[in-house]
Amino acid sequence: MTTTLLTDIGLLVTNDPTLGTGPTGELTDAAVIIDGGRVAWIGAAVDAATAIAELGLGPLSDIDKQSAGGACVIPGFVDSHSHVVFGGDRAAEFEARMAGRTYEAGGIRSTVAATRAASDEELRARLYGFVDEMLAQGTTTLEIKSGYGLSVESEERLVRLASEVTDEVTFLGAHVVPAEFASREGGADEYVELVTGPMLEACAPHAKWIDVFCETGAFSVEQSRRVLEAGITAGLKPRVHASQLGPGDGVRLAIELGAASVDHCTYLSDEDVAALAASSTVATLLPGVEFSTRQPYPSGRRLLDAGVTVAIACDTNPGSSFTSSMPFCIAVAVRDMGMTPAEALWAATAGGAVALERADVGRLMPGTRADLVQLKTPGYVHLAYRPGVPLVQRVWKDGTLVVG
Amino acid sequence: MTTTLLTDIGLLVTNDPTLGTGPTGELTDAAVIIDGGRVAWIGAAVDAATAIAELGLGPLSDIDKQSAGGACVIPGFVDSHSHVVFGGDRAAEFEARMAGRTYEAGGIRSTVAATRAASDEELRARLYGFVDEMLAQGTTTLEIKSGYGLSVESEERLVRLASEVTDEVTFLGAHVVPAEFASREGGADEYVELVTGPMLEACAPHAKWIDVFCETGAFSVEQSRRVLEAGITAGLKPRVHASQLGPGDGVRLAIELGAASVDHCTYLSDEDVAALAASSTVATLLPGVEFSTRQPYPSGRRLLDAGVTVAIACDTNPGSSFTSSMPFCIAVAVRDMGMTPAEALWAATAGGAVALERADVGRLMPGTRADLVQLKTPGYVHLAYRPGVPLVQRVWKDGTLVVG
Ligand SMILES: [Zn+2]
Ligand SMILES: [Zn+2]
Repeated sequence: MTTTLLTDIGLLVTNDPTLGTGPTGELTDAAVIIDGGRVAWIGAAVDAATAIAELGLGPLSDIDKQSAGGACVIPGFVDSHSHVVFGGDRAAEFEARMAGRTYEAGGIRSTVAATRAASDEELRARLYGFVDEMLAQGTTTLEIKSGYGLSVESEERLVRLASEVTDEVTFLGAHVVPAEFASREGGADEYVELVTGPMLEACAPHAKWIDVFCETGAFSVEQSRRVLEAGITAGLKPRVHASQLGPGDGVRLAIELGAASVDHCTYLSDEDVAALAASSTVATLLPGVEFSTRQPYPSGRRLLDAGVTVAIACDTNPGSSFTSSMPFCIAVAVRDMGMTPAEALWAATAGGAVALERADVGRLMPGTRADLVQLKTPGYVHLAYRPGVPLVQRVWKDGTLVVG
Repeated sequence: MTTTLLTDIGLLVTNDPTLGTGPTGELTDAAVIIDGGRVAWIGAAVDAATAIAELGLGPLSDIDKQSAGGACVIPGFVDSHSHVVFGGDRAAEFEARMAGRTYEAGGIRSTVAATRAASDEELRARLYGFVDEMLAQGTTTLEIKSGYGLSVESEERLVRLASEVTDEVTFLGAHVVPAEFASREGGADEYVELVTGPMLEACAPHAKWIDVFCETGAFSVEQSRRVLEAGITAGLKPRVHASQLGPGDGVRLAIELGAASVDHCTYLSDEDVAALAASSTVATLLPGVEFSTRQPYPSGRRLLDAGVTVAIACDTNPGSSFTSSMPFCIAVAVRDMGMTPAEALWAATAGGAVALERADVGRLMPGTRADLVQLKTPGYVHLAYRPGVPLVQRVWKDGTLVVG
């Protein structure tokens, strides 16, 4: 593996306050040395040649030298919430919702039907397409959930496919009660038995995380607790979907069980916010959901001011949020969630890493993975200032140039 | 020039209701024959070979055959409102505005200072960069305004540079009263004298359009009338910035003078809407402005329901809207302006063409320019359904593949 020297970085965001200015650890006129897929050194560009010699990585003539041309370089985005193994799409449902019409054939269950009907090859082609699309937009770490199978075999298939492209696989059998259970008395509890029994057994070997949609109309707090505790017993770590559609006790359940993250957080009580601030659970905001459903945006400002750790993710899924653009989510978080560009960028990189309990991504410092994004602009404010414009110039993942 | 057959088009939008379904003239399983930079034929894919023979364009073996792979193909976007000849940027001002802070050094005049200080080469590099960036996002026709020079020489320079990249050049000397005039009694009227005199004389040879920012704090209705009438006398066609910051008489002035378009239209009275509906003046909405300034969105629905012709444009500029993404503007128009995806797409293509009095772009029919965009998706609803995601796969301009 070659050693790379990336120099002429106008603005470098490290997210390490000991390396640079502010919580985002910013340096100007910086350079990064990449070796063995990891960051080997970060510092002032003028010191890079000396550093290469001192690290024993020379001679300089053998090093792959790259210029960022004065542009801004940031850590690769860590998108800690996605649902990108599915069949079909729901463009017609989206169109109807935007026009204020109801759409009978829609909902998660229509995606479940399309996913069950799709072949492995179809699902894989789609999944790999999303991964490439996200990489081109700067996402170098991606969490992927199951949840459109809802049977033992099909959920196992989804976590297995997801594990081909990421280490961050989440078993979300408890996404919704499938039609065949929902239609009968006590069906939801029977389905929870299935999820916490044979489905969990089949899926746990492929997954790192257990997740549940704790919401009125999905799973109650009691059912959610059973799902999460069974997952923990099976060696998975908990994360929770909660308070998307209305207030509820999902946030407090997540905190009680030590979840790495509770996601959506659209409707939070003051008690929820205080409990989050006193916990190690990350609040993950999903701006694409509110954009695409016209729900009210949660306030990132309120959470940050209370001391809560905030992440931003895309929640890429065919129903409530089909964006895969972390820059777009940053722009919306700045416009509509009261976050500064620096806070939003931190949430989309380091925040996502905390939400996935990962110390090796989301920050650039000696030893972390060399996942870097070179923007087309001199600063990262442009991610919000130039909404919708593709601003990713080059992407390195594990030290390899994969885009640009 | 080669003849191209683009086939396997899952969904083709022509904007010609006689060629396909609805106001957007949609065909499924379609093909397009391109010859001499123009659309030569449009129809069902199964009829394409016969059409080539009948048009005398064969033999089929000599034709450049392209497959759209079942994707959606739309007319290239017609972005009828931009300000992309300028120096510097105002990222810090944007950041301050988002945080609710005032920013003393900001405003149009700071861009005027940076633009005046920039060399031709600097402005040209920037301008060409924007044109390429827009082309990659599907914009094949672009209007460009001056307005960051505000002196005879510098305005002449801006329209001259703009004319290197587009036929749709707008002289906007009356963008704002420059500092050197604004600081003295009667300075605004003196500046209008300059604009309508030597500045117009210098700029008119390079321009097609005359424009004015008719708004409290910029130019009064009387001053705007003098600017527009002088431009008309010099052979330019009128278009107007009006009702961006509050209600005013700019819309009615635009209609009275037969302006092709009145742009912004954020604050319209019922009388304005009725007058627009009874006129041939297009109402051009600029979703990026309201997104980036947090002003209330105007209702596209209200205008469409009244029978007004609506266009959508980016208004790319370093102050109020630095997006250059027509797909992003479509997504916002669907979410926040009450437009359907079909209406928003029409407004961003055919609507822009009407706003520029162009019959040769914005629609795909025999004889129009072969400006086509192949999306990565099976439909155009995805432009709103997948906000922020780069969905442009390939772009043809004047029949030549320029992207992809
Ligand atoms: Zn989710
Ligand atoms: Zn403008």
